[in-house]
Amino acid sequence: MSTMNLEMLFSPKSVAIIGASDSTSKIGGRPISYLQKFHYNGQIIPINPKYQNIGSLKCYPNLQSVPGDIEAAIVAVPSHKVLLELQNCAAKGIKAVIVFSSGFAETGTDEGKAMQTQIKQLSQKSGMRILGPNCLGIINFMEGFTGTFSTSLPRIDNFQNAKRSAFITQSGAFGIMIHALFYGEGQGFGYFVNTANEVDVQIADCISYFVEKDLVDVLAIYCEGVRDKSRFISALTKAREKRIPIVAAKVGVSELGGGAANLHTGAIAGSDEVYSAIFKQYGVVRAVDTEAVFDFVTLASIGRFPKGRRIAIITNSGGAGVFITDKCVEYGLDVPKLPVLIRAELDKILPSFGSSMNPVDCTGQLINEPELLERALSLLAEAENIDGIIVFIGLMDGYEDTFIATLQKVLQKTDKYLALSWMAPPAEAVEKARKVGIPTLTDPARMVRTIQMLVEYNESIESTTEALKSNSHRNNGKIVNIRDRIEAYRKSGRYILSEYESKAILKDYGIPVPISGLATGVDEAVKIAEEIGYPIVMKIESPDILHKTDAKCVKIGIKDSSEFSKSFSGILENAFSYKPDANVLGVNIQEQVSDSVEIIVGIKQDPVFGPCIMLGMGGIMVELIKDVSLRVLPITHADVKKMISELKTSKLLYGYRGKPAADIDALVDVIMRFGEMALDFEDLVSEMEINPLFVTQHGVMAGDAIISLKE
Amino acid sequence: MSTMNLEMLFSPKSVAIIGASDSTSKIGGRPISYLQKFHYNGQIIPINPKYQNIGSLKCYPNLQSVPGDIEAAIVAVPSHKVLLELQNCAAKGIKAVIVFSSGFAETGTDEGKAMQTQIKQLSQKSGMRILGPNCLGIINFMEGFTGTFSTSLPRIDNFQNAKRSAFITQSGAFGIMIHALFYGEGQGFGYFVNTANEVDVQIADCISYFVEKDLVDVLAIYCEGVRDKSRFISALTKAREKRIPIVAAKVGVSELGGGAANLHTGAIAGSDEVYSAIFKQYGVVRAVDTEAVFDFVTLASIGRFPKGRRIAIITNSGGAGVFITDKCVEYGLDVPKLPVLIRAELDKILPSFGSSMNPVDCTGQLINEPELLERALSLLAEAENIDGIIVFIGLMDGYEDTFIATLQKVLQKTDKYLALSWMAPPAEAVEKARKVGIPTLTDPARMVRTIQMLVEYNESIESTTEALKSNSHRNNGKIVNIRDRIEAYRKSGRYILSEYESKAILKDYGIPVPISGLATGVDEAVKIAEEIGYPIVMKIESPDILHKTDAKCVKIGIKDSSEFSKSFSGILENAFSYKPDANVLGVNIQEQVSDSVEIIVGIKQDPVFGPCIMLGMGGIMVELIKDVSLRVLPITHADVKKMISELKTSKLLYGYRGKPAADIDALVDVIMRFGEMALDFEDLVSEMEINPLFVTQHGVMAGDAIISLKE
Repeated sequence: MSTMNLEMLFSPKSVAIIGASDSTSKIGGRPISYLQKFHYNGQIIPINPKYQNIGSLKCYPNLQSVPGDIEAAIVAVPSHKVLLELQNCAAKGIKAVIVFSSGFAETGTDEGKAMQTQIKQLSQKSGMRILGPNCLGIINFMEGFTGTFSTSLPRIDNFQNAKRSAFITQSGAFGIMIHALFYGEGQGFGYFVNTANEVDVQIADCISYFVEKDLVDVLAIYCEGVRDKSRFISALTKAREKRIPIVAAKVGVSELGGGAANLHTGAIAGSDEVYSAIFKQYGVVRAVDTEAVFDFVTLASIGRFPKGRRIAIITNSGGAGVFITDKCVEYGLDVPKLPVLIRAELDKILPSFGSSMNPVDCTGQLINEPELLERALSLLAEAENIDGIIVFIGLMDGYEDTFIATLQKVLQKTDKYLALSWMAPPAEAVEKARKVGIPTLTDPARMVRTIQMLVEYNESIESTTEALKSNSHRNNGKIVNIRDRIEAYRKSGRYILSEYESKAILKDYGIPVPISGLATGVDEAVKIAEEIGYPIVMKIESPDILHKTDAKCVKIGIKDSSEFSKSFSGILENAFSYKPDANVLGVNIQEQVSDSVEIIVGIKQDPVFGPCIMLGMGGIMVELIKDVSLRVLPITHADVKKMISELKTSKLLYGYRGKPAADIDALVDVIMRFGEMALDFEDLVSEMEINPLFVTQHGVMAGDAIISLKE
Repeated sequence: MSTMNLEMLFSPKSVAIIGASDSTSKIGGRPISYLQKFHYNGQIIPINPKYQNIGSLKCYPNLQSVPGDIEAAIVAVPSHKVLLELQNCAAKGIKAVIVFSSGFAETGTDEGKAMQTQIKQLSQKSGMRILGPNCLGIINFMEGFTGTFSTSLPRIDNFQNAKRSAFITQSGAFGIMIHALFYGEGQGFGYFVNTANEVDVQIADCISYFVEKDLVDVLAIYCEGVRDKSRFISALTKAREKRIPIVAAKVGVSELGGGAANLHTGAIAGSDEVYSAIFKQYGVVRAVDTEAVFDFVTLASIGRFPKGRRIAIITNSGGAGVFITDKCVEYGLDVPKLPVLIRAELDKILPSFGSSMNPVDCTGQLINEPELLERALSLLAEAENIDGIIVFIGLMDGYEDTFIATLQKVLQKTDKYLALSWMAPPAEAVEKARKVGIPTLTDPARMVRTIQMLVEYNESIESTTEALKSNSHRNNGKIVNIRDRIEAYRKSGRYILSEYESKAILKDYGIPVPISGLATGVDEAVKIAEEIGYPIVMKIESPDILHKTDAKCVKIGIKDSSEFSKSFSGILENAFSYKPDANVLGVNIQEQVSDSVEIIVGIKQDPVFGPCIMLGMGGIMVELIKDVSLRVLPITHADVKKMISELKTSKLLYGYRGKPAADIDALVDVIMRFGEMALDFEDLVSEMEINPLFVTQHGVMAGDAIISLKE
């Protein structure tokens, strides 16, 4: 029940302010002033033994002396008094508390951490919801509850502009600056919440709350680190089901940044690539900066998205049209030619020095003939090869009412996505356009970047009809057998399985491996080789030699029995000179796979999100150009296909330089199986890797593999 | 004399308006109104037989009837009357003319092009400077000359904010929108000029003018295509010598964009990568969009630059510090730890919940203790491992005067770069800060992007002390010999030289090639091979077979004479089956180079900038991940080193995976020679390529080469 009682946090009927003050220079004074200024229509109950009254409000010495029930409280007392006050809140039956006070885990001190743990325990035991500590609280302009001490509120005089949108941020100070930025730009979030130290209420809970209650059309989050995987994923899934777009700014891209984030709020930072993966998988669009958050929220609020990447551009400047086209191509959007009939109609109305190609250039002629815009736009709205329209206007003082009316009209007639970029606009034009529901930005480059984000969002929600299957094989008899074998390795103290052992397990799990046999002598080796057929590969089999190539214990391309004896003994010699006390189980004689593309597939554990699957191009590509793609398990077929396409050298798989195309279906199947296996044995296996995975024209095979177990 | 008489274009003492009107709805009316509004202190001379007077100004029927000399004219008459009016101007002795009229090459019609050619010829013959046609003219707020018909001028009420900066744009409408954007943001360009169709005055001339006259501290250009290489490069060189930074927005990144740009102004668009190369070589910073232009101009106007990549960050929000650190790492900037002593001093003054690491977090404590900023900043200014300081403040209404005074003081004390990012700032704070010379933006991500641009600019001007040597070998006897040979090939109708011929020329030019010999029979081949020493490589020698590998006419790794006969005849057979009528000169017997990294070096011709040199990683990297770097010739050693470092897989050269490092000095030397050779024979050679160029631990060798000649 992660959203239990959250309505009493966001919109309580009564709120006690513990540590209330009559001065707005104190954090216990500001919420009282704000609640009154913004016409909170619940009951404000100041608590402070020092005052009889605060303004016109009666002030109580303590909670016990307040008659009747109280839904929520704000705690603004020094850190060492917080626990006691929270206990009083619980005793009074208060359902939700915002803790402004700082001095907890964010200080990095043992004392701070210990106090925070006590608060967490109280919350768990009592069921009382706690936001914070160390938080800036809540600003709810939709239902009128401003439980915050932010100094930004006095300047917000346009809170009527609040939209059906929410901003959920772990960072308090930076978050409130972003919130203020939105109102400074003439629009704003309906809801703001700073979860800060997250002893109880997390980002995920807030997402779930806003989605379940149908309070918003778009969500923005500012995230330093997620604490609870399943709550987070469940929240994202709910939002996706209801088609409520989420844009996320996430810090910690750099190790440096990551380090600092750790220090800053004590959040457990998973590696940044894992967050990118989770966002991709659950339809969250990642914003590169705060302006991208602003732009996305602004353009997504219309509730429709471009259904594809095909964009029409219409401008009052040919130069701007070229610039926007450039940007579209940079962001992977198409600017297709318009259908012949539509071009013909456009040519009839456009001036001779205009252009009916895409981009459509109405030229400065719009000054003399403003109705041209509506006529041209109406034609574009009919083009069947267009998913979204960017209207670019620059300057044009005095035409704002005309053009805004035009866009409103066209928006009603079409279900295509349509947005307005008005550069160096007349005063108030942008605000007016936004007010009547036209998605509007000023800068054309940012417009294109945001359209790309909307397209990405639409693709991600459209593509995921496939249900996620986790643990699909668990009740299979073979799996039980594998489980028993893995358990046996662990009981014998073996935590790293050899190639032979690892591949045997993969094979039983349905992942093809090359034909091979383990030989302890040359004669046996020759016999195995002749059964397999030449050429063959020889490799040492020893749990103590993991890097077989480095140890010179791999010999490929053995064409016949002539070199056999020398190769066999050479490998053994190299093994013992590499590691004299190695436990050598024999030499692996293996079918040689030719004409393949080599891939790496691996499983790593993320501290927050658990097992993740990595796909990489083999050979030197993984290391040299970091040619990898990552997802959090479980994954869908669509995810795997996307992963493959994300490889920078994926061309190698599709029939590069006249070679036949690799068997992508088989590759997808093996990656899926490998992922399922990681989940089936999540409790036992820590890391797994197939390297190389040979991908041929017909099927794939695990050339080498390693499985490491949890100790 | 590309800047001859340009002062009469930008700041004439008298200006005739040909096609003058009393109405600002006409393009001949607006400049009169603007010149009066913005207090032009020269003489305004309206020309139009229809009027006796325009306002208080006497209007003349024609130029001849005006007494005395006139320096400049504006032509605002229909296109077919323009030539006649220009002839009248020349006859009157007018030195500079702005042609507003459109209807020329930009229409794409033969008639338009022909009229434009006539204007061009008139300009060349008369020496009269002509801006345009099809141009928006000039806005000079520094000396007060507004020779434009832009409708954006009436809204500019803050032209006193004009800076010592110029914006030179080929695009008129889009350019004037960018100009308006700057004034909309509370600052603006001192000079605006739209070169448009460029019959005479080009972007390069304007750059030269502003630089030579010392009129600006920073230049911005909006460029669709350069017409004259040497004027452009000469202008950039002048700017670099005077350390006047130039930021360029260039469209045509995409082929699509490029196509549209061609149509739009008829500019000859070189390929976009060539522009990137030219910009890098001559210290021009390329802006990705118009906001980046704005940001660069804003932050560069202070006249100092970060001397390195080491950035200190100081904030009033820990979250913002993390975010800015992330962005620094993304943009390749360092955020080093501060020196111990400075940290110790910071710890004394910062609150316990702040941070003296880099980023330095002053926290919300700045509200209570604003003087903290000056104390902390003064310490940062002393850190010897810091090149630039980003001060980030969010919100803080009421503190603007305090903080601005603080930054002014610190800027005076230090020669480090220092800039202010004030997010969601108090009203007017940013304008005030800029007014007193503090480089100020609001958005922190854009701040970091711009700091990176400044660092890049500084690096480019610092690194190019080396003089450019072009044609260095021309007077060398050997070169004469090579020239004679190339001429002989051309005379015999041979425009593509074979591998053997090409490598012979390279060798004579001082570029090492593997030892080799041309054999016409097996016995001869064996003899050559034994002189060279095994292993050897065999390749067909035929000017008709350029793709030897595709034709199966290459055999590598021949270890002894046993396979000789079979290989030799096999190659000949394959050659004739590939191309029955091929002119086969023999079989090349060549030393096999082992343990090398394979590189590609090529020369291509750009229609505007001439010979360009391309460096690429060999094997599949060039094609698969486009791993190439490009420069326009001539190049310096520093350029070549930068090119090598720009390769995504350059690691392969520096001792990858335990291999010895390749001989970079020899590689640089060969690339330099290859470039010099391309210039020495620029008149004869069209394309050249060495592929592969073997780079070994000791020296490099051209494994294969091709030279194609101009017909």
